[in-house]
Amino acid sequence: MRATVMYGVHDVRVETVPDAKIIESTDALVRVTRACICGSDLWPYNSMPASEPGNRMGHEFIGVVDAVGSAVRKVKKGDLVVAPFAWSDGTCEFCQQGLQTSCLHGGWWGGVTLDGGQGEGVRIPQADGTLVVLPVGPDHALMPSLLTLSDVMGTGHHAALAARVKPGRVVAVVGDGAVGLCGVIAARRLGAGQIIMLGRHADRISLARTFGATDIVSERGDAAIERVRELTGGLGAHSVLECVGHGEAMRTAVSIARPGGAVGRVGVPQEETIPNAQPTFYSNITIAGGPAPVRAYIEELLPDVLEGRIEPGRVFDRVTNIEGVPDGYRAMNEREAIKVMIEF
Amino acid sequence: MRATVMYGVHDVRVETVPDAKIIESTDALVRVTRACICGSDLWPYNSMPASEPGNRMGHEFIGVVDAVGSAVRKVKKGDLVVAPFAWSDGTCEFCQQGLQTSCLHGGWWGGVTLDGGQGEGVRIPQADGTLVVLPVGPDHALMPSLLTLSDVMGTGHHAALAARVKPGRVVAVVGDGAVGLCGVIAARRLGAGQIIMLGRHADRISLARTFGATDIVSERGDAAIERVRELTGGLGAHSVLECVGHGEAMRTAVSIARPGGAVGRVGVPQEETIPNAQPTFYSNITIAGGPAPVRAYIEELLPDVLEGRIEPGRVFDRVTNIEGVPDGYRAMNEREAIKVMIEF
Repeated sequence: MRATVMYGVHDVRVETVPDAKIIESTDALVRVTRACICGSDLWPYNSMPASEPGNRMGHEFIGVVDAVGSAVRKVKKGDLVVAPFAWSDGTCEFCQQGLQTSCLHGGWWGGVTLDGGQGEGVRIPQADGTLVVLPVGPDHALMPSLLTLSDVMGTGHHAALAARVKPGRVVAVVGDGAVGLCGVIAARRLGAGQIIMLGRHADRISLARTFGATDIVSERGDAAIERVRELTGGLGAHSVLECVGHGEAMRTAVSIARPGGAVGRVGVPQEETIPNAQPTFYSNITIAGGPAPVRAYIEELLPDVLEGRIEPGRVFDRVTNIEGVPDGYRAMNEREAIKVMIEF
Repeated sequence: MRATVMYGVHDVRVETVPDAKIIESTDALVRVTRACICGSDLWPYNSMPASEPGNRMGHEFIGVVDAVGSAVRKVKKGDLVVAPFAWSDGTCEFCQQGLQTSCLHGGWWGGVTLDGGQGEGVRIPQADGTLVVLPVGPDHALMPSLLTLSDVMGTGHHAALAARVKPGRVVAVVGDGAVGLCGVIAARRLGAGQIIMLGRHADRISLARTFGATDIVSERGDAAIERVRELTGGLGAHSVLECVGHGEAMRTAVSIARPGGAVGRVGVPQEETIPNAQPTFYSNITIAGGPAPVRAYIEELLPDVLEGRIEPGRVFDRVTNIEGVPDGYRAMNEREAIKVMIEF
């Protein structure tokens, strides 16, 4: 089968690899119908040390179940399923609490030993805990929005929950990538009264406004902090969604939260420490978040997607096939595209 | 009047200073009957640059109202009152939310321009918002426990709330000072199922056990982290109360929280960053806390003190008068005393 392998900085190749197959009785085999490239894939794209085996890539996908192991009960051959960006058993202490990204028997797609979503087939460990059956066919018009339930929409929702968005609250979103844009959707969905998007790209800002952003801050650094203060009566935001991960974004995020407010971080942190330990302390600012347990959110968000109340699939502004994946990485990295969908 | 002034490292003096007096119509004048020395006073005691005017010290006190300004309505001459460690108007947006330590018109005791609690008299700004009348006389046997409502008991409670202590949860307390000991009381009061105290001093450990600690970890650093893991089935604590403030304590605190857990920090941070940005992210660990809005907690905790359900006053193991304050600092700094009460 064809699959995406990353070998180092800017070195993404589509290659023929061994077909995915069932190994454990709890596995399922999924033939991928839609997948995509994630903003978090750009971190290794720009920093991965050269690796000879290479890393299989992709953690967001929808597909059709082609086979199941003997112990699988909840999905069957022919089901259309969406996979969250982490696999999980659904039964351990953390899964029961809805924190499937800390599953005691779970893990992450791709790498050296597992299939990735940016390929034609994927072995699904812990299929019963991991997969969610979709009640539509594989070419349904809502496929882009359904695909976001594998990561970015659930991640934006997680950021909003971690930042304690509630009706009427003042919310700021740091980062205008697909996750930030989904954060705007999530904040509006949870009833935010004011949604300030910090971003600079015209196409993304336009989409953010469509999704519910009430204010746009295009300044950077201290000027951005100052502008958010102006927009919030000098107080800052109750809830800040940090959807980037690098140090400057986190510094901005903790600096625009008001006393007693919260920062929900979902951007993968690129630094070893969290800045502003003292100002955040003196203002009782909560810092929460991490990898979103999107598996816990799919059932909650699915009806809103199916009934058209939210349209996160609009973050996809480019479509390619499997052979076009390397150019998709390039396009996202150069900010030519917000997010690239892969059709199989 | 006599009051405590700090001039630099290990340089604490009791001096005659101008009598406290009413300046604003919203002020009250309090004649102090009980005060104490705080663990947080030891930070400047060990690091304050030499200062000629010096800083008036003390932020925990009980006293009798001697006079009130013309606009004061809620307290009157003769009332016995407890003062929280920050003063606040009680009416601003943050006070209404119960975050009086971020009051828009509030502030902190002592320093160059205001009286401190370690002195015979204190001008109380925003008296109506700040003071809480106690329903007992100034020599009541519960005076030590009532005095802890000015800071350490409310601060331990804040740490427990920030760390999301709930019935049955596994709690760890980093720091065996008065705040950590009050954190044990608070965790037990909120129904914690297991309370692990990280501390090394025999007298404090003994008191922690009396207050409800179920396990003691006297190791340091990685060994302490390992020991907490052993005591928690390998998972770590749901709730960690960080009651010290230096980097090593914070590193330990974030390292012993389980995935999805929370660290409530009330130790004044001595470093500019929060450690372990990446491990805390991957485990969805929440970092919360700050200066406790003890004003918000006094009414809630007061009945438990008056009815003897909690005895935080047991953290005082030494009593002095105003002239003995400098030696009280020395004794606390050398860990001869847990916490020193000052009787007037």
